[in-house]
Amino acid sequence: MDDNLIVYCAFYLVKPIFAQTNFVMQEIKKYVETHKQRFLDELFELLRFPSVSADPKYKGDVLKTADYVAQKLKDAGADHVEICPTAGYPIVYGEKIIDAALPTVLIYGHYDVQPADPLELWHTPPFEPTVRDGKIYARGACDDKGQFYMHVKAFELMMQTNTLACNVKFMIEGEEEVGSANLGIFVNANTERLKADVVLISDTSMISMEHPSIETGLRGLAYMEVEVVGPNRDLHSGVYGGAVANPATILCKMIASLHDENNHITIPAFYDKVVELSDEEKKALNAAPYDEAEYKKDLDIEEVWGEKGYSTLERTGTRPTLEVNGIWSGYIGEGAKTVLPSKANAKISMRLVPNQSSEEIAEIFTKHFESIAPKNVKVKVTPHHGGEPVVTPTDSIAYKAAEKAIEDSFGKTAIPTRGGGSIPIVALFEDVLGIKSVLFGFGLDSDALHSPNEKYDIYNYYKGIETLPLFHKYFAELSK
Amino acid sequence: MDDNLIVYCAFYLVKPIFAQTNFVMQEIKKYVETHKQRFLDELFELLRFPSVSADPKYKGDVLKTADYVAQKLKDAGADHVEICPTAGYPIVYGEKIIDAALPTVLIYGHYDVQPADPLELWHTPPFEPTVRDGKIYARGACDDKGQFYMHVKAFELMMQTNTLACNVKFMIEGEEEVGSANLGIFVNANTERLKADVVLISDTSMISMEHPSIETGLRGLAYMEVEVVGPNRDLHSGVYGGAVANPATILCKMIASLHDENNHITIPAFYDKVVELSDEEKKALNAAPYDEAEYKKDLDIEEVWGEKGYSTLERTGTRPTLEVNGIWSGYIGEGAKTVLPSKANAKISMRLVPNQSSEEIAEIFTKHFESIAPKNVKVKVTPHHGGEPVVTPTDSIAYKAAEKAIEDSFGKTAIPTRGGGSIPIVALFEDVLGIKSVLFGFGLDSDALHSPNEKYDIYNYYKGIETLPLFHKYFAELSK
Repeated sequence: MDDNLIVYCAFYLVKPIFAQTNFVMQEIKKYVETHKQRFLDELFELLRFPSVSADPKYKGDVLKTADYVAQKLKDAGADHVEICPTAGYPIVYGEKIIDAALPTVLIYGHYDVQPADPLELWHTPPFEPTVRDGKIYARGACDDKGQFYMHVKAFELMMQTNTLACNVKFMIEGEEEVGSANLGIFVNANTERLKADVVLISDTSMISMEHPSIETGLRGLAYMEVEVVGPNRDLHSGVYGGAVANPATILCKMIASLHDENNHITIPAFYDKVVELSDEEKKALNAAPYDEAEYKKDLDIEEVWGEKGYSTLERTGTRPTLEVNGIWSGYIGEGAKTVLPSKANAKISMRLVPNQSSEEIAEIFTKHFESIAPKNVKVKVTPHHGGEPVVTPTDSIAYKAAEKAIEDSFGKTAIPTRGGGSIPIVALFEDVLGIKSVLFGFGLDSDALHSPNEKYDIYNYYKGIETLPLFHKYFAELSK
Repeated sequence: MDDNLIVYCAFYLVKPIFAQTNFVMQEIKKYVETHKQRFLDELFELLRFPSVSADPKYKGDVLKTADYVAQKLKDAGADHVEICPTAGYPIVYGEKIIDAALPTVLIYGHYDVQPADPLELWHTPPFEPTVRDGKIYARGACDDKGQFYMHVKAFELMMQTNTLACNVKFMIEGEEEVGSANLGIFVNANTERLKADVVLISDTSMISMEHPSIETGLRGLAYMEVEVVGPNRDLHSGVYGGAVANPATILCKMIASLHDENNHITIPAFYDKVVELSDEEKKALNAAPYDEAEYKKDLDIEEVWGEKGYSTLERTGTRPTLEVNGIWSGYIGEGAKTVLPSKANAKISMRLVPNQSSEEIAEIFTKHFESIAPKNVKVKVTPHHGGEPVVTPTDSIAYKAAEKAIEDSFGKTAIPTRGGGSIPIVALFEDVLGIKSVLFGFGLDSDALHSPNEKYDIYNYYKGIETLPLFHKYFAELSK
C-alpha cells in the first residue's frame, strides 16, 4: 500500500477503535479518580479485621470479616448475596446475572489472612493499615484482601457506569490460608449456582508495573510434618551424651540427605512425572526481565541458590522443590540447658509441577523418610493439605482477554510467567466445575506475603481496579 | 603364724577396731533414725522454693532459698553464717573451726535448680515434692538440693554427737545451673576464708546402692549458640523456594557434617589433646556393672549409639562428644505455614575430657563452623559458659577417705567411675585454691536430672547422711 493509504487507514479505521478504547479507559479512570479515597477507606476497614483463620482465638474476627465482605458486595450492586455456612468459616457469595446468553465470570478470593507472627518484626501493627512511600502495610494487604477487593470495586465501577459486559459471580472464602478444607465440599454441592465460563483470581504477582505479566502456571503443594523420637524422655547430655542417638542430630542428617550437592532432591521417583519445558518455552520464560543483582540486594544475600542447571526463573516456576518450613527440638529458650532431647520435629513442604500428583508425592516422601531413619529412632510422618500444579494455556480466550486488558491499561504486551506459589483450589475448579482459571494478580514479589511488613502498593490497587473491567469487556467480545 | 595366734589377733585386735567402727555406725544410724522425719520435712521445704536461676521471674524465690539455707546452717551449728552478695545470686557461707591443726573440709553445693519445663510432662508439680515408691519427686530433688542438704544434716549429726573430726566450711552458691559466673570472682576474693584441704561435692551419681561408686573424673563443657542467617526476612516458600538457600536446610547440613559415619567428630584438631585410657584403665572402667538391656529398656530405645570402637561407659566417661541441645527455625506452631525462614538457630554443647581445654575447643568449633558455612548465609557463633575436665587420682587421701567411708557404710569396695557430666567449678577450685575435690554423690542415673519428674531416692538421702560423717572421720585419720 502507498503511504497515503496507510495514513487513510490509520485515520479512519484504527483511530476510531483507538478512540473508543481511549474513551473506555477515560471513563474508568474518571470513576476511580472520583471514588479513590473511599476505595482506600473501605479496604483499610477490611484490613483492620484480624481474620487469622489458622488461630481459633480470632474466630469472631473472621466471622465479622465475612459480614463486612457481604455488605460491600451488596453495596456494589450484587444480588443474592449470601454468607454460606460451612463446617468451618463461611463462603461469601454474590452475583449479578444480566443476560443468560452472556458469558459468566466467577471471581474467587479469600478474606482470611496468614498469622502475623513474629509480631516484633512489624514496623507498624499488622492490623492497623499504614501508608508509607505509597504502600499499604498490613497483614492481608496483598494476600488477599487488597487483591480481591479490587474486583468488588471494579464490579461497582461497571455497575455504576453501566458497562457490565459479562454475568458476574463472587465466591470469597475464609479458609485459604489453612487449606480450604471446606471449599471442595461447597463447590461440589453448588455446581449449578457456580456455573461459569472462567474463574478470575487475583492472588499472584506481576513482574512489575513496568513489565506487566500474567501467571500461566502454579506449582502444587505437598506439606508434611515429621517427628523423630529417640529416648523416651529428655536426657542429661552429660550423663547420656555420646551413648544415645540424639534425635535432633538424626533429623538434621535425614534432612541434609534430601538434597545432593547439586540441590537435586534425592527422594527416589520424586521427579518421575515432571514435565520438562521445551527449549522454546524455556526461552520465553527466561525472556522475562530478571535482575539478579536487584533480587539479591532485596533479600540481602550474596548468592542465589538452587538446582544446578536451571535459571532462577526456572527454579521457582518450573521445577519442584523441597523446603524446611520449620524445625524444632530440645531447649530453645534463653540461655543454656544441657539436654539431649527426646524428640525432634520439622515441617517440610514440597512445591510440585505438572504432572506430579500431590497425593503420590506425599506417599513417596513418607516411604523414603521412613526408610532413611536409623534403627534407634521412631519416625512419624503426617501429611497436611496439598494441592495440584496447574497450567493455563496462552492461546485460551481467558488468557487473551487478560492480555488485551493489559495492553489497554498498561500500553504493553503482558509477559506469561510460571509462578512458584500454590493455589490448590485452581485444580479443584477445573475438576469439579470444568473451568479454567485466569491468574490475574497485581501484587509484587516485594509484597512480603506470609512475612512481617506485608504491603500492597496503592498504585497497583488502583491499576487493578482500572484494568479488571477491561477483562470483562474482552472476555465477552472474544466469547461471541 | 599358727591358727591359735590368728584367732588371738582376730579376737583381741581386729574385733575392737571392728567393734569401734560398728559403734560409730550405730551412733550415726541411731541419730538419723531419731530425726529422719524432720530431715525429710526440711528438705521438702527447701524443694518448695522454685529457685530457677535461669529465669529472672523467679528472682525473689532464689533469694528466699538462700535465706532458708543460711538459717538451716545456723540451726545445724555453723558459725559466721553469711549470705555473701555477688553481682548475681548470693553465695551462702558458714563454718565450724574446731582446731586449726585439723584438716578442713570445704563443702560445695548449689541451691539453684534447672527450669522445670516442659511442665506438662510432670506427673506431680515440680515444686510440690511428692513421694512415690520411696522416691522424692521434685525439681532439684537430686540436683542439687537433696544432695547438698545431706551434708548439712551430716554436719548437724556430727555436732550433736560431738564427733566432728575436721574443720568444716560450707559454700553453697545459687548460679550453678547458669554457669556459676560469679563463683570464680568470689573464690578469688576469698582465698583466705576458703582455705581447706579438700572440697567435698555431692552432685553426681553412683552406679547403684548395690554397687556404690565414687566419681573420679568429670567431663568438661563448651557450650555454643549458633545462628545461620539467609535472606533478610522470612519468605514465601512458593515464590522463593528453590531459588534461595534455606537457612534451616543449611544448618541441618552443617550439623549433619559434624559427625562422620562412625560418630567421630569431624572438627579438625578436636581430638588433638585427648588422653586415651591405658588398657588397664579401660579394663577397670569396663568392670563396672552395666546392663545394656536394662539401659535400653529404661530409655525405650532399640540401640545404643556412639563413637565406633568404644563401649558405652567409655563413650560417656572418657570420650568427648558433641550434642545438639536445641534447634529452631521457621514456623513451629500449630498447622501449616509455607515460609522459607530467614534464619535458623541451634544450641550445641561439647563434653570434654582431659586434656582438652574449654576455651580452645570453643575457638576450634567457632573457626570450623564458620568455615563450613556456604557463601550464601551469614553465621554467628556465640560461646556460653564452659568448664574444664577433671580427674581425681584414686591414690589420694581424699579418695581413700571416701573409699573407707563407703566400706563401712555399704560393706563394699567403691568402684571408681568416670562421669559424663560437667561441674566446671571443680577445675576452678584446683586452680585458685589449690585443692582437689572429691565427687561423693549419692544420686542415680535414673534420677532424671534436667528432665521432667526428677527424683531422689529417700534411701539414698539417708544413706548419704550416714556415710558422710565417716568421710570426715577417715580424712582426719589419714591426714595425720
